[in-house]
Amino acid sequence: MLRTLKLTLAYDGTDYVGWQRQPNGPSVQAQLEQALERIEGRAVKVTGAGRTDAGVHALGQVASVTLDHDLDVTTLARALNATLPDDIRVIEVVDAAADFDARSNAHGKLYRYCVVTGPRVSPFERRHVWHVPQALECATMRKGAALLCGEHDFAAFQAVGGSVKTSVRRIDRIDIDARPPPASPAVGCGVTVEVEGNGFLRHMVRIIVGTLIEIGAGRRAVDDVARAIESGRRADAGPTAPARGLFLVQVRY
Amino acid sequence: MLRTLKLTLAYDGTDYVGWQRQPNGPSVQAQLEQALERIEGRAVKVTGAGRTDAGVHALGQVASVTLDHDLDVTTLARALNATLPDDIRVIEVVDAAADFDARSNAHGKLYRYCVVTGPRVSPFERRHVWHVPQALECATMRKGAALLCGEHDFAAFQAVGGSVKTSVRRIDRIDIDARPPPASPAVGCGVTVEVEGNGFLRHMVRIIVGTLIEIGAGRRAVDDVARAIESGRRADAGPTAPARGLFLVQVRY
Repeated sequence: MLRTLKLTLAYDGTDYVGWQRQPNGPSVQAQLEQALERIEGRAVKVTGAGRTDAGVHALGQVASVTLDHDLDVTTLARALNATLPDDIRVIEVVDAAADFDARSNAHGKLYRYCVVTGPRVSPFERRHVWHVPQALECATMRKGAALLCGEHDFAAFQAVGGSVKTSVRRIDRIDIDARPPPASPAVGCGVTVEVEGNGFLRHMVRIIVGTLIEIGAGRRAVDDVARAIESGRRADAGPTAPARGLFLVQVRY
Repeated sequence: MLRTLKLTLAYDGTDYVGWQRQPNGPSVQAQLEQALERIEGRAVKVTGAGRTDAGVHALGQVASVTLDHDLDVTTLARALNATLPDDIRVIEVVDAAADFDARSNAHGKLYRYCVVTGPRVSPFERRHVWHVPQALECATMRKGAALLCGEHDFAAFQAVGGSVKTSVRRIDRIDIDARPPPASPAVGCGVTVEVEGNGFLRHMVRIIVGTLIEIGAGRRAVDDVARAIESGRRADAGPTAPARGLFLVQVRY
């Protein structure tokens, strides 16, 4: 009997071309589909809630898939994890409504971006943070973040060449927190940026973070954010922060 | 003017054959010596406090070196970190007494071993933990650990083929702690074992951890520890835990 499943996934995106299948290298989607095909015995297609870019990580990516298989969900999760590479893990499998679609049913997403500041002291974090040598002023970053919250046209905060119908999105909150003081001198200080919203344009979180980091480092004025929103010109926003510090934390339904 | 320096290092040991120079691959020692040679302009030799094995990590390895160079220590640390690969970091450089030797002057060392239990849920920790599927009983592990503390002949807890004069060592403490409950379902539960002592035989910490894990999983009796100490036979202790969960945290002088 056909059933629709909701899969929650965590992955280290470092060694992948991104979520989506692409001709130029291994994708998370292709790995997951291969693991499912071994169980299902035929080609399957999964839909991901968010098309994370090359090098972007996930703590709670969501995918939907239709299977003709009556394995219980716990056994299915275990079987998938036995087949998947160590850097992709299935956190949870649950039965979903027949018409559940991970992408079109998503109401919102939560992303987290991890920045480490000061000298690059940790040899363990390099795959999962952006290293910024300057100290960052969280208070001014928060002022810039406040201007981004709400519904706006984020045309200036998307990768050039995007082809979406509208670039209007709503950001529900942006939290900027200094990391707790590290317990070891081999762990750096840093800042974490969490962004929650109803949807995100291509590179939107990374451009938001790149802009806020410039504000926090004193290289850009808080008001630049308002100007970029108004002009809609990519050049008026900051640089795109690197993929490796970004995590898709949660998808809301 | 010749000066002796004390360097504190952190490294991710995953991609190295260990601390010590070896013909079969890159070592941390060789990387550090190469970085120092660029600054010094001639061959240099560093001495490490502990010869960490292939795949073992460090948060606070200590090395000594004699240089003929008057760079201040902060600039020297920065210059080394600019040359060293990202997975080896110099945490601190200080001037030391002319006769300081990182190896022979060490009074003791602190190691930490990280175990993750249950399903393998995190794609981010795989290079730095040992994954054990069974739940572990910390209370019984602590009873086994108590039998190891103090001065004993640890002949049963060293790699076969060791060539040290004596296998008597003193363990000052072994702390076994359940990890705080993870904030994300993509982070596993686990147990951390910290072992502090005046010196360690080859693989000693890893065999201690392998033995305690068997006790915690209920596959070995607490009293087996006393029997292994008494017999001195490697076969009476548990298996050698894998290198990737082990960190040299601190060297005491």
